[in-house]
Amino acid sequence: MVKPITLYSHAKGPNPWKVAIILEELNIPYEPKFLDVVEMKKEPYLKICPNGRVPTIEDPNTGITLFESGAIIEYLAETYDTKDALSFSTSPEKFYQSQWIHFQMSEQGPYFGQASWFARIHPETIPSAIDRYFDQIKRVHSVLDRELAGKEYLVGDKCSIADLSFVTWDLLVPWIFGDRIGEYDAEKTYPNFYAWNQRLMARPVVQKVVKDREEALTTGH
Amino acid sequence: MVKPITLYSHAKGPNPWKVAIILEELNIPYEPKFLDVVEMKKEPYLKICPNGRVPTIEDPNTGITLFESGAIIEYLAETYDTKDALSFSTSPEKFYQSQWIHFQMSEQGPYFGQASWFARIHPETIPSAIDRYFDQIKRVHSVLDRELAGKEYLVGDKCSIADLSFVTWDLLVPWIFGDRIGEYDAEKTYPNFYAWNQRLMARPVVQKVVKDREEALTTGH
Repeated sequence: MVKPITLYSHAKGPNPWKVAIILEELNIPYEPKFLDVVEMKKEPYLKICPNGRVPTIEDPNTGITLFESGAIIEYLAETYDTKDALSFSTSPEKFYQSQWIHFQMSEQGPYFGQASWFARIHPETIPSAIDRYFDQIKRVHSVLDRELAGKEYLVGDKCSIADLSFVTWDLLVPWIFGDRIGEYDAEKTYPNFYAWNQRLMARPVVQKVVKDREEALTTGH
Repeated sequence: MVKPITLYSHAKGPNPWKVAIILEELNIPYEPKFLDVVEMKKEPYLKICPNGRVPTIEDPNTGITLFESGAIIEYLAETYDTKDALSFSTSPEKFYQSQWIHFQMSEQGPYFGQASWFARIHPETIPSAIDRYFDQIKRVHSVLDRELAGKEYLVGDKCSIADLSFVTWDLLVPWIFGDRIGEYDAEKTYPNFYAWNQRLMARPVVQKVVKDREEALTTGH
């Protein structure tokens, strides 16, 4: 009997929802705990996550506490996806899976994050910074589009944690571009990327998590 | 007999040198191939790495081609560090190792990279963007400093790929800050971080790679 995993989360941030998708896909019971930004930056949370950000998980089944969403989804797959339904545990696929998760973590997440910062949060409007990061969003999509030519999924022939790791940041693209979303027709410019994203969005679990997120945005938890 | 691994590299970028450190530490033979930025963005390199960046490795021993430095060093450790001299292959340490490599990939690399962009490359001088990223460099160091209180290394009781993954970006901090380096006394502000970085920098392999990098910066290869 698997005991519920605690997921430290935040309604707005895309990274805890990325972990929620993998938990739901793998049918792992979990309890989200929503923190506000002030709580993340102080004790007792800093003892659990010295980075002061979410997500972090506490898994009572293994005693492991882990932060960084990329590391968490790899841990969940390795520990709970023992039949490789949503992941790869053998070479070479497991290394390609790791490669795309690192690409998500080191390029999609940071560039999309900086785009939202300069387009929506930074106190000063800096057109050259906004343009820089909007261009990087398109560049990240161009890389995925190139890779997905003639393929349904990034690795092997099934949907895996590598694909699903991209969903929650892509969901925010219309919000990031705001009034300027008309400038970017992803469907026309990057059709392989677009079709893949639609395929992922159509999964019942992704739809459920999108709903959970909307509810959390309204209620705060 | 291990055949040499091809390492697609660039004299300036910190990420290929991160991989070089792990190759040298594990005594894996390798041949660097230096590309300029134009070559990275077109065929035939894009076939090897759709992201158009370095590093990428080609390993003739396994037939694997892989990009993203975080994925590459995990692959090298898993494939060649069979005695766990520089890495962890059992739970929970292997998951903590993955956590810190993801932190390096998703926070240290991107924030230090954006700091260099706005401080040294962006055509316009934007003080609020430079300040933002200089603050993030300090914040990343503060996280490492907190974690390293009373510890020699990030995971377990030995130096691992998790620690070494941070070295090459930290090496660039004086260049990133430039004239403003006087503002930031890492030794005084984050002594645990500073002592750890000195410990890593003192390793013969790290010193060798620092020299190789200086030579490549002079000769271009």
